[in-house]
Amino acid sequence: MSGRLIGVGVGPGDPDLITLKAVRALAGADVVAYFAKAGNGSHARAIAAAHFPPGAEEMPLLYPVTTELPRHDPAYRDALCGFYEEASVRIAERLAAGRTVAVLSEGDPLFYGSYMHLHVRLSGRFPAEVIAGVTGMSGCWSTVGMPIAQGDDVLMVLPGTLSEAELARRLAEADAAVIMKVGRNLPKIRRALAAAGRLPRAYYVERGTMVGCTAIPLSARDEAPAPYFAIVLVPGWERTA
Amino acid sequence: MSGRLIGVGVGPGDPDLITLKAVRALAGADVVAYFAKAGNGSHARAIAAAHFPPGAEEMPLLYPVTTELPRHDPAYRDALCGFYEEASVRIAERLAAGRTVAVLSEGDPLFYGSYMHLHVRLSGRFPAEVIAGVTGMSGCWSTVGMPIAQGDDVLMVLPGTLSEAELARRLAEADAAVIMKVGRNLPKIRRALAAAGRLPRAYYVERGTMVGCTAIPLSARDEAPAPYFAIVLVPGWERTA
Ligand SMILES: C[S@@+](CC[C@H](N)C(=O)[O-])C[C@H]1O[C@@H](n2cnc3c(N)ncnc32)[C@H](O)[C@@H]1O
Ligand SMILES: C[S@@+](CC[C@H](N)C(=O)[O-])C[C@H]1O[C@@H](n2cnc3c(N)ncnc32)[C@H](O)[C@@H]1O
Repeated sequence: MSGRLIGVGVGPGDPDLITLKAVRALAGADVVAYFAKAGNGSHARAIAAAHFPPGAEEMPLLYPVTTELPRHDPAYRDALCGFYEEASVRIAERLAAGRTVAVLSEGDPLFYGSYMHLHVRLSGRFPAEVIAGVTGMSGCWSTVGMPIAQGDDVLMVLPGTLSEAELARRLAEADAAVIMKVGRNLPKIRRALAAAGRLPRAYYVERGTMVGCTAIPLSARDEAPAPYFAIVLVPGWERTA
Repeated sequence: MSGRLIGVGVGPGDPDLITLKAVRALAGADVVAYFAKAGNGSHARAIAAAHFPPGAEEMPLLYPVTTELPRHDPAYRDALCGFYEEASVRIAERLAAGRTVAVLSEGDPLFYGSYMHLHVRLSGRFPAEVIAGVTGMSGCWSTVGMPIAQGDDVLMVLPGTLSEAELARRLAEADAAVIMKVGRNLPKIRRALAAAGRLPRAYYVERGTMVGCTAIPLSARDEAPAPYFAIVLVPGWERTA
């Protein structure tokens, strides 16, 4: 009898924004795996550690160091692919031995998350389940109390890694927008918002729902690079009823 | 001392997909309010009722009967606006009396939800907080185990109430797409997906994470109208690493 793979969404940061289902899944896990960068702690681990059962094996999955390589470089793809393959092999060994493996994901596992790379490699061979989580974007607009979309609004989720021209073109077509992966893309994102006429209502949220959270109009934010956990929100909603 | 307004996301349907934070907020509530249609039970109430504290006042907020009116008819807007005004007045009375009022929302409160109409009316006058929830769309793609978006993917959330031409135009521009508010719009949505060349990968999910959940390729779904809790998912993700 092989074990079960569970992708566990742990929510946007506040440890209380984890679901009962995630807590129960963790209580039954033999192995808890999580992605991390060498030298950095894992955020997902910090959110969920209180629920690890005593004696569970912890399995950090350390991303290869890739910051020197441009994102579209084939060597970068190869390094990542090899990493996901190797992580899958290690997890498959536990599953084959009948152990239940919970893989933590910040926010929701299948929404721009690394877990999907394990899921597609393993879910055909082992029983697998995904536990949805509160996304980072939901955590952020709730922190601000910003109604993001209603009625006939079209909401676009845009990675900040897109080119300035494409961001501007997309933003001009969106009613509401969420820009993820802000980091060093902040100046480009700001220019694209200005070009699309969407800067006045844009909001910047850093570390949403976490300790040290900042939420301010983007126009009030300086030009220093944003951290990894930063997002830009443009509400589509305007009061109609 | 006035009471606190709390918009509580209860998640997509599975009662275990509620957060610890929502459970704690309900435990401390004096009044629990929820939207419902006259004659129908409230889904949000069913999800969260196990956590209502003994003795809490329940306050159903019954939508006015509006199905005879076209959605863009000013009389429809007026009826809804009057309803939100009146609900806000009833809640404000409790808040002014120092009572904590939790308003339940399916999924996430500020994502295409009715709660926002109370929040904008009350949050300026009373302390207010929003507790993010797992959205219906996250529940649905997790049920299917479908990675929805990764990397540079643009994800569009489209209300099925848009015109066929606009849906088709938007879908042709999206990497990944979620179509909400399916219901009687299903035939139109199917035609728009076909026109945009996106029908082959489209998935249909009804009552995601709830008892009686159905998840099938849209091409295998018959033409009968969909229920209220139905969604169409088009994954952007294709395995690259
Ligand atoms: C690789 S994506 C993972 C998203 C995650 N799976 C989710 O469901 O939110 C990481 C990006 O999400 C955004 N993000 C996630 N959580 C956040 C938070 N608590 N505050 C601000 N941004 C957040 C940031 O833009 C970050 O660059
Ligand atoms: C008015 S919107 C409210 C969305 C909610 N606030 C959320 O965060 O998901 C209602 C629409 O969401 C979608 N939906 C919500 N929960 C769902 C579920 N469990 N299964 C399928 N569709 C769902 C349906 O398309 C439905 O018409």
